[in-house]
Amino acid sequence: MKFKVKDMDIATGGPFIAILNHRDAEELDLHSGDRILVNHNSRRTTCLLDISETSKSVPKGRIGLFEEVLDKLKVKDNQSVELEFNGKPESVKHIRDKLNGKKLTYEELLHIADDITNDRLTSIEKTYFVAASYVNGLSLDEVIDFTKAIVNTGDRLKFKGLVLDKHSIGGVPGNRTTMVVIPIIAAAGFTIPKTSSRAITSPAGTADTMECLAKVELPYKKILEVVRKTNACMVHGGAMNLAPADDKIIEVEHPLSIDAEGQLIASVMAKKYSVSSSHVLIDIPIGKGAKVESKSGAKRLKKKFEKVGRKLGINVKVIITDGSQPIGHGIGPLLEAEDVMAVLRNDPLAPADLRKKALMMAGILLKMAGKKNGEELAQEILDSGQALVKMNQIIKIQGKQKKPTLGNYRYQVKSKKNGKVKSIDNLIISKIARIAGAPKDKGSGLYIVKFVKDKIKKGELIYTVYAESKFKLDLAVGFTKKNDGYTLA
Amino acid sequence: MKFKVKDMDIATGGPFIAILNHRDAEELDLHSGDRILVNHNSRRTTCLLDISETSKSVPKGRIGLFEEVLDKLKVKDNQSVELEFNGKPESVKHIRDKLNGKKLTYEELLHIADDITNDRLTSIEKTYFVAASYVNGLSLDEVIDFTKAIVNTGDRLKFKGLVLDKHSIGGVPGNRTTMVVIPIIAAAGFTIPKTSSRAITSPAGTADTMECLAKVELPYKKILEVVRKTNACMVHGGAMNLAPADDKIIEVEHPLSIDAEGQLIASVMAKKYSVSSSHVLIDIPIGKGAKVESKSGAKRLKKKFEKVGRKLGINVKVIITDGSQPIGHGIGPLLEAEDVMAVLRNDPLAPADLRKKALMMAGILLKMAGKKNGEELAQEILDSGQALVKMNQIIKIQGKQKKPTLGNYRYQVKSKKNGKVKSIDNLIISKIARIAGAPKDKGSGLYIVKFVKDKIKKGELIYTVYAESKFKLDLAVGFTKKNDGYTLA
Repeated sequence: MKFKVKDMDIATGGPFIAILNHRDAEELDLHSGDRILVNHNSRRTTCLLDISETSKSVPKGRIGLFEEVLDKLKVKDNQSVELEFNGKPESVKHIRDKLNGKKLTYEELLHIADDITNDRLTSIEKTYFVAASYVNGLSLDEVIDFTKAIVNTGDRLKFKGLVLDKHSIGGVPGNRTTMVVIPIIAAAGFTIPKTSSRAITSPAGTADTMECLAKVELPYKKILEVVRKTNACMVHGGAMNLAPADDKIIEVEHPLSIDAEGQLIASVMAKKYSVSSSHVLIDIPIGKGAKVESKSGAKRLKKKFEKVGRKLGINVKVIITDGSQPIGHGIGPLLEAEDVMAVLRNDPLAPADLRKKALMMAGILLKMAGKKNGEELAQEILDSGQALVKMNQIIKIQGKQKKPTLGNYRYQVKSKKNGKVKSIDNLIISKIARIAGAPKDKGSGLYIVKFVKDKIKKGELIYTVYAESKFKLDLAVGFTKKNDGYTLA
Repeated sequence: MKFKVKDMDIATGGPFIAILNHRDAEELDLHSGDRILVNHNSRRTTCLLDISETSKSVPKGRIGLFEEVLDKLKVKDNQSVELEFNGKPESVKHIRDKLNGKKLTYEELLHIADDITNDRLTSIEKTYFVAASYVNGLSLDEVIDFTKAIVNTGDRLKFKGLVLDKHSIGGVPGNRTTMVVIPIIAAAGFTIPKTSSRAITSPAGTADTMECLAKVELPYKKILEVVRKTNACMVHGGAMNLAPADDKIIEVEHPLSIDAEGQLIASVMAKKYSVSSSHVLIDIPIGKGAKVESKSGAKRLKKKFEKVGRKLGINVKVIITDGSQPIGHGIGPLLEAEDVMAVLRNDPLAPADLRKKALMMAGILLKMAGKKNGEELAQEILDSGQALVKMNQIIKIQGKQKKPTLGNYRYQVKSKKNGKVKSIDNLIISKIARIAGAPKDKGSGLYIVKFVKDKIKKGELIYTVYAESKFKLDLAVGFTKKNDGYTLA
């Protein structure tokens, strides 16, 4: 059945929506919320149906499509699409089984991953799967099978031989070690193609930060070229079709900040597996407000990561680090990029904690790759400026970006009394930076000067808030007046 | 902040959607999927935000609202609404606790019920609650507390003294005992105000069936009048604000056909509690394709219903009945209404199984109300025509409806061989009736003539399919050719 497209000029950011006139819907016995398959040339996608009650917004014979659908089908206003009607996909049965405590097989998990990848499951159905995996848990075999299923329902970046990678579990603002570690490893001659995410709930993801310096949305071929020429890349994983089911699962985990342990492991390992990693270092920062809050939880997670790695034929090493306060001075894309460049330039004012952590991680990775003196080698590469040269090479080949400017609207948060910093709340610091505009406004965020155990006098600067508009600065400042994230002793 | 309404002329059937122009959204740091509170005069509702990328569909300064929102706020195109920004409601924390296996208190469950009633939770968040209640289970105390919470976040119909009620757990097509039992009980002089639901996945709910005879969407005052004049009513519960959280939970249970046992009990008992029932008979039909498939499951459920009843001060009796095949001849609103009226008229061709089951249930209810000879009394009332008189009185006072006509497009499904009916698949029978147009097309559905254990010859009629359009008849007939729902021995 053919319908002529009407561009509705609406984006949902999430579900794929199509709209039919009520008369067409009635004729076809379709109802709001039904699943339909929309085809255009060789492209197809599943949409949820809304109904137009009159002919004003969508007349009979036409189909209103939201932006996400138009993009996916590469179809324009007034072109034709073909409709089919979808029943409920079979994987709903497997999800029901998981709710009932059943262990799922590889084939069943593949079925689920495939339906998620192709948008055949609604967000309610995906939520049931995440909730079932969370409450009933995924066995180690299920985690391994689901990791493979996620990888096998997407594309892979294929590299041969030793391929290194690293991953930090989230929740600690400013933990931007990737952008120091990658240039060091690449300068040492090892292959390290790094795909990163954008921020979902944090003030900056590595992809957002790197984008202050270089293009990060690169086509497949270009990424291969960057890695061939530099040994490395630092790109946005979401732009490629690597483990696409994972991104779509994260969408429904986000509203409740649910991190089903099995899903977390599958998510991280699928991304690594899909870029052919052979040696992976995983950093689990622990501390209040970090994703992992307790040492025992981190240790349990560490063991599982190592086991799953072994089963997938990936050499995985896990370190548990201090995530009790922000790392580096800057929070927000540009401010974090400046921290990274200061470390790479060996700037005497560069944040020592970021430098130290990145060197430690690069050292471990080099050891994993067979360099016995890993940490000294990492330091030598950084101190000699080779890491900076490598970073500039990566930036140049990915495509240099005009650096954003720092937010012109600024506010200094000062101490109201004498004391010593007892703790800093990661969640509150992230929230203030986000209210100020991060990660969307790249030049907004916080520049922190006082850390835990620092002595502080009344009236002394704690951090500066940067924003790109007065409106957002006022909102952020309003928030700091209720809670600035600092506890003094 | 004020915005001028644009009527988008789109219905979602589910989530409440508002749309802002991307420039307004950017200024306010709002993103697709954010929660906003829209106020108009004294009415308010929570909407999920979509973004218009250009000025074509929603220009700056305007807010596009979907039909559900316009209805709820009673606001029209070009009128003004006021926006507020909602954070995540606190009950999300309680839902996370439930996912983690915590027992919730009455206050926490009230918080959840209140946020559900007022549309402050998204469907994803509600799904997490249902999934957590399903996998981790609700304790008996939680079921009782949640029942009270659901009732206390809605309106109540208050009646004094002995108030009877009945409820059949779903899944068996044609199980329309309510419309026979209620007139009998009311004719015996007892109060029995019955609220029923419309079909969600079945070919007819009692409300859909009753609507073939009388108005079922009545305002609160009118319902009180009907009960005062007739001792009874048979109305659509969804039209009132009785236990509104329950209806909104069912919305997210439906996609996976999940029936968390605790939620099911709370759902049924809340509806009874909200109409002041003192004596309730619950019918659990068991059989393949019914909601409860096993005898052991039915027995467990029976015990829980009785315990919850005791705690709520309601005398609950539970019967376990045969739900292995459809009841009565007709499947679909009008065809089921005809069955009911045939039983009430003592028509010799009336379905004997429906008559027998309804008499048994009416008898038990009369016994519960103190009439020792319950079943004989029920039969006397039915046989003497008093039940029919009462039914006609109820129809008249609720408001008589012009009876729909039976679908003019018909197809006879005949046996392909000689044999004996071994089993009938409830789910397939329901599906065929729905494809033929039920419950929306009231005159569509099935008229069944052969039941389990009946002998049948090749070419003999099994059932007739009725539809209101050729299109739907063809679809239904196409389906019967793949699967007619019958297994012969």
